[in-house]
This record gives sequence, C-alpha cells and structure tokens, in this order.
Amino acid sequence: MGKEIASRSEDYSQWYNDLIIKGGLADYSAVRGCMVIKPYGFALWENMRDVLDKMFKDTGHQNAYFPLFVPKSLFEKEEENAEGFAKECAVVTHYRLKLNPEKKGSLMVDPDSKLEEELVIRPTSEAIIWNTYKGWIQSYRDLPLLINQWANVVRWEMRTRLFLRTAEFLWQEGHTAHATANEAIAETKQMLEVYATFAEEFMAMPVIKGVKSPNERFAGAIDTYCIEALMQDGKALQAGTSHFLGQNFAKAFDVKFSDKENKLDYVWATSWGVSTRLIGALVMAHSDDDGLILPPKLAPIQVVIVPIYKGDEQKKAIDEKVSGIVSELKQKGIRVKYDDNENSRPGWKFAEYELKGVPLRIGIGARDLANNVVELARRDTKEKKSYSMEGLTDSIADLLDEIQKSIYNKANSFREQNITNADSWEEFVRLLDEKAGFISAHWDGTGETEDKIKELTKATIRCIPLNNPQEEGKCILTGQPSNERVLFARAY
Amino acid sequence: MGKEIASRSEDYSQWYNDLIIKGGLADYSAVRGCMVIKPYGFALWENMRDVLDKMFKDTGHQNAYFPLFVPKSLFEKEEENAEGFAKECAVVTHYRLKLNPEKKGSLMVDPDSKLEEELVIRPTSEAIIWNTYKGWIQSYRDLPLLINQWANVVRWEMRTRLFLRTAEFLWQEGHTAHATANEAIAETKQMLEVYATFAEEFMAMPVIKGVKSPNERFAGAIDTYCIEALMQDGKALQAGTSHFLGQNFAKAFDVKFSDKENKLDYVWATSWGVSTRLIGALVMAHSDDDGLILPPKLAPIQVVIVPIYKGDEQKKAIDEKVSGIVSELKQKGIRVKYDDNENSRPGWKFAEYELKGVPLRIGIGARDLANNVVELARRDTKEKKSYSMEGLTDSIADLLDEIQKSIYNKANSFREQNITNADSWEEFVRLLDEKAGFISAHWDGTGETEDKIKELTKATIRCIPLNNPQEEGKCILTGQPSNERVLFARAY
Repeated sequence: MGKEIASRSEDYSQWYNDLIIKGGLADYSAVRGCMVIKPYGFALWENMRDVLDKMFKDTGHQNAYFPLFVPKSLFEKEEENAEGFAKECAVVTHYRLKLNPEKKGSLMVDPDSKLEEELVIRPTSEAIIWNTYKGWIQSYRDLPLLINQWANVVRWEMRTRLFLRTAEFLWQEGHTAHATANEAIAETKQMLEVYATFAEEFMAMPVIKGVKSPNERFAGAIDTYCIEALMQDGKALQAGTSHFLGQNFAKAFDVKFSDKENKLDYVWATSWGVSTRLIGALVMAHSDDDGLILPPKLAPIQVVIVPIYKGDEQKKAIDEKVSGIVSELKQKGIRVKYDDNENSRPGWKFAEYELKGVPLRIGIGARDLANNVVELARRDTKEKKSYSMEGLTDSIADLLDEIQKSIYNKANSFREQNITNADSWEEFVRLLDEKAGFISAHWDGTGETEDKIKELTKATIRCIPLNNPQEEGKCILTGQPSNERVLFARAY
Repeated sequence: MGKEIASRSEDYSQWYNDLIIKGGLADYSAVRGCMVIKPYGFALWENMRDVLDKMFKDTGHQNAYFPLFVPKSLFEKEEENAEGFAKECAVVTHYRLKLNPEKKGSLMVDPDSKLEEELVIRPTSEAIIWNTYKGWIQSYRDLPLLINQWANVVRWEMRTRLFLRTAEFLWQEGHTAHATANEAIAETKQMLEVYATFAEEFMAMPVIKGVKSPNERFAGAIDTYCIEALMQDGKALQAGTSHFLGQNFAKAFDVKFSDKENKLDYVWATSWGVSTRLIGALVMAHSDDDGLILPPKLAPIQVVIVPIYKGDEQKKAIDEKVSGIVSELKQKGIRVKYDDNENSRPGWKFAEYELKGVPLRIGIGARDLANNVVELARRDTKEKKSYSMEGLTDSIADLLDEIQKSIYNKANSFREQNITNADSWEEFVRLLDEKAGFISAHWDGTGETEDKIKELTKATIRCIPLNNPQEEGKCILTGQPSNERVLFARAY
C-alpha cells in the first residue's frame, strides 16, 4: 500500500537511503555529491537549528556572517589547518562566463576573467574569521568574543552519502576568542556539554563524550572534544566536535591583545560545530523497517489526524470535532496536521505518516464521535489505544513526553548492550565482525598503532571518554603497557 | 565623546559607510566585494528574516535547500537568464589544492583536479531548482509547489557597496510552480503585497508597487513586479522583486504536468526575493547625523537602560529597581538591555546607543528612584520626558508603537514631497539635478528611449505603478504619444 522500503537487516544501506528519499527528507541533485534538502527534511533541520540557536544564545553567543570565500593566501596561513583541508577544497578561479563562439546557446569560462588570487570555498571558517578578529581585538575588554555562524560549507568528498557526507552541507560553526587558555578550555567543554544535552534531550540519542586521539584531531587544534553516537548497525557516528585551538590561529593571523597590565599576548581560541549530518544520525538511531521514527521534540509534525468516514455528513461532523482538537493542540504549542485530503484513503495515509515518522496518529471515525473517544497510535511502539475526548490535549502532551523518553531509553539500552571490552587482538577482531558496536580496549598511545589497527580492521579510536577510569593493561595490538581503555569502532 | 560620523548633507556616501561600520552593522573583509555582517547587523537581519519567514509560511510556503553550485550545462539552459547573469558568475574549476613545491608553506591549485564541467556559484537558483522540480512534478496534484529558500548567492559586481551591492549576499528566493498562468500571476502579486506590507509595517519604509519596464526585467521573466523606496538623498532603491516567469523555465527544463483531463502542459512559474540589501535601505531611509534610527519592530535592542549613579550604594538601589523593570519588559516581549558596564560613562553610552539607533533610552538615577520616575529619551525625535514607574511597561510599549508610526510618517511625507511631475525634457533634467526624488513623466514605451534617457541623465524607469491612472501625454524625450506616466529616478 505505502512506498516500499528495504529492510534494515537485509540491506542497511539501502534502508537508510529509502528512508531519506521516500520519507521526503532529501533528494539527489544534479551536482556531484550535493543533495537537495526537501521541505520535510528542512523543517526538521529548522527545529534542530532553532533549539541549538537558543542554547548558543543562552550561553552568551551572538550570530554573525563571514564570507563564503577564503583567499588562498589567507587559507594557507595556519599550516596544519590548510594541509588538512587542501585535498578537499573547491576553488574559484574565474569570475565571468561568456558566449561560446563555437557552440550556439552555450557558455564558456571567460579566460580574461581569471582571478589574480584563487578563492577557496570555505571548508571551515577559521582562516577568514581569525583574519577578521585581528581588527576586532585589541584589549582584554574585547574578550571573550563569542560568535557563531550558520552557514554552508564545501568539502569535496570522493564518496558521498545523503546527509552523512555531502560535498556541500549546512552547519553552524562557533568561533570564540579568550584571554586565557583556561577560559578557552572551559568554553570548549561547555559547548561539548551543549551538544551532548541537545543530542540526548532533543534527538533522544545517547552519546559518549570524549577526546580524540591525536590522529583524529581537527587540523590545527590542540585538542578535539567530541560526542559519539551508536547507530543500529553497530557503527559509530561522530555527532559534534568542539576544538581547543590554543594560540595557533592567533599566531597565524597575528591576533594579540593587551591584558589589564598592558602586556601583549596572543589570544586563545576555540571552534565547535554540528551539521546536517545530525539528520543522518537521527534517522539511523531510531527508525525501523516501516520508516522514520522521529523524536517528538524535533518532529515537524508531532500529531497527525486522519478522518475515517463514509459520506459528507460523517465527514462534516468529524471536521467540526477535529477543528476544536486542532486549535486546542496548537494553543498548547503542539505541531498538528489534519490530513483530510480526499485523494488518498486512510490506510495509505497511515502508512505514509509511519514512513515519515510522525510520533502520534489520531484516527477518528463516526463511532468514535458517538463514544466521545479517539484512537491514538504511537509510531515508536505501534501501540494503539482509545482515549476519551475529555482532557485529550493533556493525554497527547503526556504521550509525546513518554515517546520522547521511550525512544531515548531504547537507543540507550541498545548502546549499553553494544559497548564491549576486548582484551586480546583475537577478541577485538571477532567482536568487530560479530557484533560491532563500541569496543573498549587498551592501546599503547601511538599514532602508528592506531594507523595499523585502522588498516587491519577499519576500526578507529572514536574517543578517549571523559572521566575515563584508569586501569593497567596491555595494548591489544602491540602488548605495550597502557593505563586506560579507549573506545574503538567502525564509524560513519 | 562618541564616534565621529560624517554629516548627511556634506558627504552622504561617507555618512552611510560610517553608520554601517561605526554603528556595528558590518565590516569590510579580506575578500574583494564581500563583507562581514557583524553581530548587531546580523541580529537585525534575523529579525527581518523571522518576520518574513512567518509571512511566507502563513501564505502556504515551505522552506527547502538547494545546492550552491549550478553545473554550467544546467545554468545555460534558460538562455535569457544565463546571458543575463553570465557576466557576474564566480566559477569553480578545480576541487583540490596541493603543496606548492616551489614555495615552502604555500599551496597551489592542483592541476590534476580540474573539473570535467565547471560549476557556477548560484547568482540565483532558477536553473538548479527547475531541474529538480522536473522530478517532483508529474500531475496537477503536485501543484501548486510553494517553496522558499534562505541562502547566500554570489554576483561578481565591479563596484560594491556595504549591504547595497556586495559580491556575496544573503537573501531568500521563492520558487513556485502552478497549473495555470492566472494562478502564477496571482502568486507573483501576492508576494509583492507581502513585501510591501513588510517594508511599510516593519521597516517603516513607504514603497511604491509597480511593474518594471522590459529593459529592467529579471532575465528570463515575462513580468517583474517591484517595490521601490526613496532614500534621503533623493535616490530610489529597489527593495524587492517578484517575477512572473511564464513557462520559460518549465520549457527550458522540460517540466510538464498532466491536468485533470490528463492533458500534458508546461508548468507556470514565479520567483521572488529580497536580500540583505534591505538593511542598506533601512539605514538610508531613517537615520540622521547622530547615527542609525531603527524601527522598533526590527531593532535588535528596543530599549536600553543606562544607570546614572555615584557610589556603590546608589548603584545597588538602581540595579534592584532595574531588574524588576527588565523582567517586566521581557515578559511583554520587549527587547531590553541594561548597560551597567563600569568602563564607560553615561554620556558615552548615550552617544553609542544613539549611533546604534536604539529606539528608546531610559536614564535612571538616584533622584529618579526617589521620585518614582524615569526619563525616557526617544531616538527619533530626541524628545525626553519623565514617566512614572507606575505602568511604565505600558508607557514604553505605547511609545514604541508611536515611534514606529512616527518614523513611517516622516519617511512617507518626505516621499510625498519628492514625487514630482515633469512635462518637458528641460523640467525633467532640472528636477533631477535640483531635487531628485521620483519624477513622474510620460515615456513613449520603447527600450531605445529608456536607454537614451539613462545615458543622458543616469535616471532609469523605476516602475510603472500598479493602478496607474491613464492620461494622454507626450514622451519627455521624443514627444511621441503616451497614455500614462511612469516613475523615473536615479537609483541605487
């Protein structure tokens, strides 16, 4: 009846694509590696953005907007950052097209419009922003500078995947400047907490907070903090990062400030970001073989009402009742849709809203009217139950809360079941292949070992968890001594 | 005491730049023709965007997001549109940088990363969007398709100006698809009304609604509707456009639908947009020699409270009182800031918030506390008056309303005084030089005459007003017969 989607267990990757495309979140585009975010997907992003934006503002940040382009000479100033991103930069070299004299109706790049200096399309904005901060920061009175930007960025990826890895994506990037290292580190950690709270309370997605190993650090950072989530196929997904940048960018762009004693020093920096990738994470964290399962706090439609009727008279009576319900729900701030489109049958609509992950569905027919009840169907558990019209708005609000908690708990117990200790190389390899998930294991702390493990198993160190218990042990690959376990996983 | 700004009458252009830069709205950037929108300017844009976004949603539109890039072969499909924008397109030709072997620490474009097909950075998104709509529209059931996008676009301008004309700017672009020409025309006009309402009710900026002459049409449109505003130097500014695109893009991208009788036809289109240029318009419409004057409905800070005190005891008593006022104002949805920064004196703060255009300033000192009053100073009229603490929140809300109306009325009477009829060429030229403003004159309806007038005087036809009275007359340049006046002006 509804649209066919692949089954999770048979073809996870096709299942994911089906959810995105058939669920109406996004579409492929004519541009290599770029996608179109469709209205339903964009409404989800707007909800995520609005919550995050408020959290950023509540912690004292302001939004601003910096140029899309980074002149090459600025881009290369912070060497580590530049080298890290050089391989995936889209570059503007010309600023004009002209008619192609050899092909009617066709345009060509005008060779006379070659730029003196190439412009990199921002893969991240540290360079252009720190070059600007130089003009904004002179004294300790100008600090801290707490700025965020919502923007599109471009990273030329060879293998792309809807939402998870696209050449262009939408994100926010916070860029802050501080008078001391400690303040900058506190900011880095504060924003990691903001991300973790957002992931857990709004996305209903449990995350592990940790620090990246040197190999996995952001290019140009002293430390990269991250939140890591677990997907249903046992692969990990980095859901947000917050970087302590030390004085690297201040030195590269010569940003100094005079402190209260009039002493000059370089400014301390952080940057932090989450992107439309979170939508991919959300989809993979909760959905099932019937479609998306969206957490009520972020769902574009929280409640859909479908009338079930024969003839105009029944329809009219239902319309009247529903109009009251709708306005009460709206008054309570609940996002509700009444789908009385006559071109599709109730059964088709049920399947469609299941596919789209609407948390609650109300079916209402003539008999329900007579009995003063409605049937509420939960998307997550598929449970259906009759509720009295009396106090319906409160019942719905309660149910939405319960669904939010319930899908978090489900994801959380899945995650708990999928963190496993490995104490030997054999166990590590076997676990990766049989069960995947996070594998907690000792590592000798070297980049070489990390590289070797990645080469052999495709697993990477996802993070060294915060407040990690100290424990004597031996590296699973080299047998060298180690004093804490780190989390390995194959990852998106 | 405050920051020096140029006087409007002595150097209008410098005055404008001073307001933008010293008022903290934007800054120049390291990228030719691109600017940085600073937090205060961006907060203003957020307010504008939020109001417009709600108006779009209330008229049934949904947001989506389409790629930044347009492959050249798509870009050139609608020929008029392509030729119209070809001269100002930034073009991506490569996707990778590499270390420059000849210069340590320097990067170069990797010649091996040349794209097979060049990518144009969207100067407007009709091409990429209509190429996508082809996959979304099959039947009349898929129509109307009412989509809006908030995005950055790039038009490589040779002479740029903060907010008014920048190489990259932020805007929204609506792109709708309809089953009939009439429906599309109705949409075009509806969105023009939305823009006019926004300009007048929120920006407090009176506008003239009209249709563009063929020479001034959007490339690829059948008709371009516009709103035109008048700046204080007598120049006009196009503040928003709404285009009826006919079937031009549907034909170029082969977008057909089957109607109720199963007959295939091309889809009818509109597009419409406003941009960060509106901030430039807002600044020039109302401000004076002391700084910005922002309409309360859009001002990032509507009320600023400045304490005037000697010693900690007075300060503490004021703090206490103000904290109550602030929370009452916030509860009423009024954007208030309490500036008790001890590093600057009240006089400096007064000048600073005048420069920033905050509509209302509250000065509060020990004597005010004793008398249970505060002094309210209006930014627009500079009027100061004492108000009782009783019912202060209501007094403030009323005053904000009054200021909103008052600055609209002021701009409106200026505009009314600056629409003048010209009935001969001599009068036309004299008026342009002496008074500027809108000049209402007869025109023979040809593009040649329009070009000639522009060449001779730099004045262009801003629009043919909607519901224009019919009147017999003779073209001011050629003496050819005409049956209506059109509005000329020099324009931004």
